Amino acid sequence: MKFVGNYSSKIRFLMKQILKIQIIVAFAFITFLSIGCKEQLNLSNSQNKTKGIFPQGGLGTSDHFTGKAYNIGLVDDDSVYNTLIGNVYFEPGARSNWHSHPAGQILIITDGEGYYQEKGLPRRTIKKGNVIKCGPNVLHWHGASKGSGMQQIYVLPNTGKGIVEWHHPVTDEEYHNKK
Amino acid sequence: MKFVGNYSSKIRFLMKQILKIQIIVAFAFITFLSIGCKEQLNLSNSQNKTKGIFPQGGLGTSDHFTGKAYNIGLVDDDSVYNTLIGNVYFEPGARSNWHSHPAGQILIITDGEGYYQEKGLPRRTIKKGNVIKCGPNVLHWHGASKGSGMQQIYVLPNTGKGIVEWHHPVTDEEYHNKK
Repeated sequence: MKFVGNYSSKIRFLMKQILKIQIIVAFAFITFLSIGCKEQLNLSNSQNKTKGIFPQGGLGTSDHFTGKAYNIGLVDDDSVYNTLIGNVYFEPGARSNWHSHPAGQILIITDGEGYYQEKGLPRRTIKKGNVIKCGPNVLHWHGASKGSGMQQIYVLPNTGKGIVEWHHPVTDEEYHNKK
Repeated sequence: MKFVGNYSSKIRFLMKQILKIQIIVAFAFITFLSIGCKEQLNLSNSQNKTKGIFPQGGLGTSDHFTGKAYNIGLVDDDSVYNTLIGNVYFEPGARSNWHSHPAGQILIITDGEGYYQEKGLPRRTIKKGNVIKCGPNVLHWHGASKGSGMQQIYVLPNTGKGIVEWHHPVTDEEYHNKK
């Protein structure tokens, strides 16, 4: 088969076709790699989101927790410091039972998001960077929100007065009640 | 000008040229976007490396610190908890003076790497996840290493006994001495 025609107009037509294909290919790659890059960053963020400072520790007993909460001791109680410190990682949806501390408790949220509620008061949303003081013998609970885990350091001062008194579990209704 | 030749061989030649160009363009985009993506991830990692949980706080006085150290109070001292808690961010190379606490101190390293030394003992390297107990009236200093910042939460218990007694600066020789 023979091809007979105007040389420059045919070349111009083919060059235009090449350009079109190149543009389509380029956009396809930009889209593809942008999505890939975004996913890598999201993965990085989500990994950091619930990444602990300390080892995860042991699974808390279902006598005191609903869902999975892991505890690791950081400072044992002794007669010099009279202070007990540890870290709890709550998986999304996990929470403590209602409980109280004879000498009060200080919570330092180091990652994620969750809830804190004192008996008779509205549930509060708490998150990374928040510090909560819970007074002596105040009945309360804390845990992760439904969509995020929560990492918290707890500090129990004046341990000579006692450590913790456990009460009943937080019901699903209490857990989900914003008021 | 006229173009006379074998139609299918010319088309095959042109198609090969298109394919070559497409491959070159594709590789160029992959390289370009991979570098961009990697840089974004590196940026994300380096930001996390010394990213604090809390606001940075105020610059510590040169009367008590060498280099730049920033302090933010988290829990004020009161008669209920008898506990003072705060966070210090040491920039690389920054450190406290020698000092002591009448009731001792607990340090919780939440990010980065640094040093801790008690008078008469070797300098220790400390890093994210470490918890250090410093006994009552023990002369000591702490700070960031030369190559990394350090984020630390400090807990001062039994504040009725006193908070801190500041001493002389840590010399460069002391700071760099591994023994």
